[in-house]
Amino acid sequence: MTQPASQVSHEADPARKAGKVGNCPDPQGVLDASPGLQLDVLDKLHNQSVLTAALFDKEMMCELVKLAALMQLKRFPVGHALNDRIMAAAFFEPSTRTRLSFESAMLHLGGKTISVADAKTTGVAKGESLRDIGQMFNSYADIVAVRHTEQSAIQELCEYLRIPLINGGNGSDEHPTQALADWYALLKWRPEIAFGELDEKFRLNIGIIGTPGNMRTVKSFLMLALLFHKNINHITIFSEMADPLGDDIRELVKSSPISIDFSQNLQQSLEYLDVIYMNAIAFLGDGYRFFGDAFSLNAESKLKDDTVILHPLARGEELSVDLDETEHNLYFNQADGAVWIRQALLLAVFGRLRDLVPAEYLA
Amino acid sequence: MTQPASQVSHEADPARKAGKVGNCPDPQGVLDASPGLQLDVLDKLHNQSVLTAALFDKEMMCELVKLAALMQLKRFPVGHALNDRIMAAAFFEPSTRTRLSFESAMLHLGGKTISVADAKTTGVAKGESLRDIGQMFNSYADIVAVRHTEQSAIQELCEYLRIPLINGGNGSDEHPTQALADWYALLKWRPEIAFGELDEKFRLNIGIIGTPGNMRTVKSFLMLALLFHKNINHITIFSEMADPLGDDIRELVKSSPISIDFSQNLQQSLEYLDVIYMNAIAFLGDGYRFFGDAFSLNAESKLKDDTVILHPLARGEELSVDLDETEHNLYFNQADGAVWIRQALLLAVFGRLRDLVPAEYLA
Amino acid sequence: MTQPASQVSHEADPARKAGKVGNCPDPQGVLDASPGLQLDVLDKLHNQSVLTAALFDKEMMCELVKLAALMQLKRFPVGHALNDRIMAAAFFEPSTRTRLSFESAMLHLGGKTISVADAKTTGVAKGESLRDIGQMFNSYADIVAVRHTEQSAIQELCEYLRIPLINGGNGSDEHPTQALADWYALLKWRPEIAFGELDEKFRLNIGIIGTPGNMRTVKSFLMLALLFHKNINHITIFSEMADPLGDDIRELVKSSPISIDFSQNLQQSLEYLDVIYMNAIAFLGDGYRFFGDAFSLNAESKLKDDTVILHPLARGEELSVDLDETEHNLYFNQADGAVWIRQALLLAVFGRLRDLVPAEYLA
Repeated sequence: MTQPASQVSHEADPARKAGKVGNCPDPQGVLDASPGLQLDVLDKLHNQSVLTAALFDKEMMCELVKLAALMQLKRFPVGHALNDRIMAAAFFEPSTRTRLSFESAMLHLGGKTISVADAKTTGVAKGESLRDIGQMFNSYADIVAVRHTEQSAIQELCEYLRIPLINGGNGSDEHPTQALADWYALLKWRPEIAFGELDEKFRLNIGIIGTPGNMRTVKSFLMLALLFHKNINHITIFSEMADPLGDDIRELVKSSPISIDFSQNLQQSLEYLDVIYMNAIAFLGDGYRFFGDAFSLNAESKLKDDTVILHPLARGEELSVDLDETEHNLYFNQADGAVWIRQALLLAVFGRLRDLVPAEYLA
Repeated sequence: MTQPASQVSHEADPARKAGKVGNCPDPQGVLDASPGLQLDVLDKLHNQSVLTAALFDKEMMCELVKLAALMQLKRFPVGHALNDRIMAAAFFEPSTRTRLSFESAMLHLGGKTISVADAKTTGVAKGESLRDIGQMFNSYADIVAVRHTEQSAIQELCEYLRIPLINGGNGSDEHPTQALADWYALLKWRPEIAFGELDEKFRLNIGIIGTPGNMRTVKSFLMLALLFHKNINHITIFSEMADPLGDDIRELVKSSPISIDFSQNLQQSLEYLDVIYMNAIAFLGDGYRFFGDAFSLNAESKLKDDTVILHPLARGEELSVDLDETEHNLYFNQADGAVWIRQALLLAVFGRLRDLVPAEYLA
Repeated sequence: MTQPASQVSHEADPARKAGKVGNCPDPQGVLDASPGLQLDVLDKLHNQSVLTAALFDKEMMCELVKLAALMQLKRFPVGHALNDRIMAAAFFEPSTRTRLSFESAMLHLGGKTISVADAKTTGVAKGESLRDIGQMFNSYADIVAVRHTEQSAIQELCEYLRIPLINGGNGSDEHPTQALADWYALLKWRPEIAFGELDEKFRLNIGIIGTPGNMRTVKSFLMLALLFHKNINHITIFSEMADPLGDDIRELVKSSPISIDFSQNLQQSLEYLDVIYMNAIAFLGDGYRFFGDAFSLNAESKLKDDTVILHPLARGEELSVDLDETEHNLYFNQADGAVWIRQALLLAVFGRLRDLVPAEYLA
């Protein structure tokens, strides 16, 4: 049992002991790889809703990541950029992590927030229609970030909105801004993936543990991975499902130049993998008994020295904390970058970049 | 079933398709009818609590509506008017719509908010007394907007407050700021109701579907209707109750020059009604089976061409969505104006108008 | 039954009737007793986490109380002091009172807040680990105020934080900022306790109704009481427990020069007590039947004329409302000062005092 707080009070403050842990690549890397920001590319996001990762092309990803890096490096002040804007954070399915990340991004930019943290406190509980909810947000806010248990809800809501909507996770469909955070971490780790051309033998082998067909973070991550096919050699999807892809993206994936296969033997494949994407896995029926250990990672796992692991926390048993202190841990950096990349997205959607970014940082 | 979001991504953004729907009168109309703002009238609201619609007289309604119109038309900046003020939004009965509307109004004025979205997260759940809760708000905030399941709660709370309280709905009693939003919509639609004298044959016939005696929005709406008796010919109350008025306002209503009657035959009366006020009706016992259809409206209902419908959403089966695209739909405009009229009320209660409104807009 | 709000509308506003009730000492008293602020003492709090009341020594208490008094007296503007800072209010155990107090303090200083009002809306409900939650707060906020049902949780969380944590109540362990509010009220009432030396016959006799060993507010209050031993003659702890102190602070208390004893006879001791600290008591088993009345106070209780009562509300049956209007009531002042003392703490932890406090108020 932990000793009572009152007995540690005269030690040095425990909080100060904590430092950055795991793999913390320098955001400067992406700026060295591609110095000037191309605002005309980001202009395409002005006033756009973000329903799906398919909205982003490679070029747009590059500029968003560079803008996030500039803000993370505090190259220019952004604290008043959205002073007159209100975001509604409408989380009809509770999620502290994603809701607070959107709110924090908005507040860092000087914006304001109104929030629904729990559907039980809303008319939705009384059966209020998305049509009427849409009218409400049109009148109360300038943008709305939504999480909903139903896949179709955010698109239906969009049909009644005059303001942009950002999908914060819709059922088993997508979680595009999580995928932005995933790739912001990966592109800080290896800027060449987006900004260069890797020699054949260095192209990435990516392992995805999960089922794109019914796990939104996995699906959105995979969709963005396809944008970087030039520098990705192979993707293996580890799932207990017979058909992990699902209808929505099967064709998209099959038509990609990246070779993709499916496996249930994660441990035997570790020696080939450069990047491993995990997620908290909800196993069906006896799934965990059969696959739980097989799909778990810990400090004993036979990882290559330079392999990095991504996980959009909160974690379950699939990812052992004994990996936190290692260089394999890119998942804390992934969490850390989530606010910066969401700030970049908000500035682009609100079209507030032209007056904000100093000329020296423009292409 | 709706197609998955990922397959619509390359269409034009669905959000941008949405435009204003229904009947959207221009706020300029009320300013043309009565140009100059009379601050001395609004001064009477300075530091006042708003427990009931009976607080507002006709003159005060006129000035509040004009002030809301000036802000909706963005005639002068208000973004810093309440920079140093904090509103506590204390919703002991959950209500996203009303809570977010108050918060949005406060934030638009530069104010700040602290919120209770759910009584279950409060000491109220532990049986905390309103007396102690009142002391808390005195110390933490400059104004408090309250919703409570008990009619007597907000008045009891008021007895312990040194700051103004705004009633956001107290049990089956009143919802005065909803009534302000209702009438802001109606007075934009027909400014003459407040600012002119209608020829006898044009005076309004209003139908109210609901029971003022136990429905707070209906009660507060009716109380404000009485202020405009010169231009209202007749009010019919459609209810399944034997005595829909209830004790609180029976005398008030009977003493009004407006002729009032009661009916259960809505459909046969439609041809006479200029304004129909509806609400989500909670029928008792078999009520819905007997009256549900009788008290419902849809695009097939025999409405006059220029009849408008008000409904303080969220709606139930009583109001069909096939009316949304018609000119009968004033209920979306009613929702849209809710934030502006609450901003007007807040500025008046905080007494921040004299430094804010440019002389050119004053009487 | 209370009459309906609609019938009181034309009376003078009930809210305006309310004035300060109970014992309201002037904050000026502490400034007269010790005029100049010693910033070097408050500097010790810069970037510190506040896990326990043991963090505060007498000297630090004096300066915090003086700083709170200066702000309560509005001697200099603080509305922009923390403009660029975000506080996460993470209340994994719901508490409106404490959460809103922290949020209000942060907003008064120009800071921003993101909040978790209910653990059920968080990953904690999904079994998210404190380690992962800590990483989240490092990325989203600049400081975090936490309440948790588990005593060990806040210290464990601290181990993963790079930002300061303020303990807003951890299980049955401590509630240090409540103790600051308790003593801010007492030191405004009798500044000599901290800033002078009382003649032997005037030294305080304090009665504490409750069990320091398992009531966090009582424990933290008692720990701060020991700092003022020079002016405290005696402390009696009234509890139904055989050993009310508990392991954590037994030695700390026994080693204090203050004489301490234990009793179950509150009523017979009232004539000796200058200060009575109460709390909402959760009696075990038949506890209330045996001790409820014995440990309750009302206007009939045999209190000395100048005895003051402290209670960190919300109250239960142990404290009768008929004491509210008397000079014994220091508990409303205690609630009133909570925001000011938390503002003082926040400014010190953020190290924002040197540019903020005008030279004329410095020692």
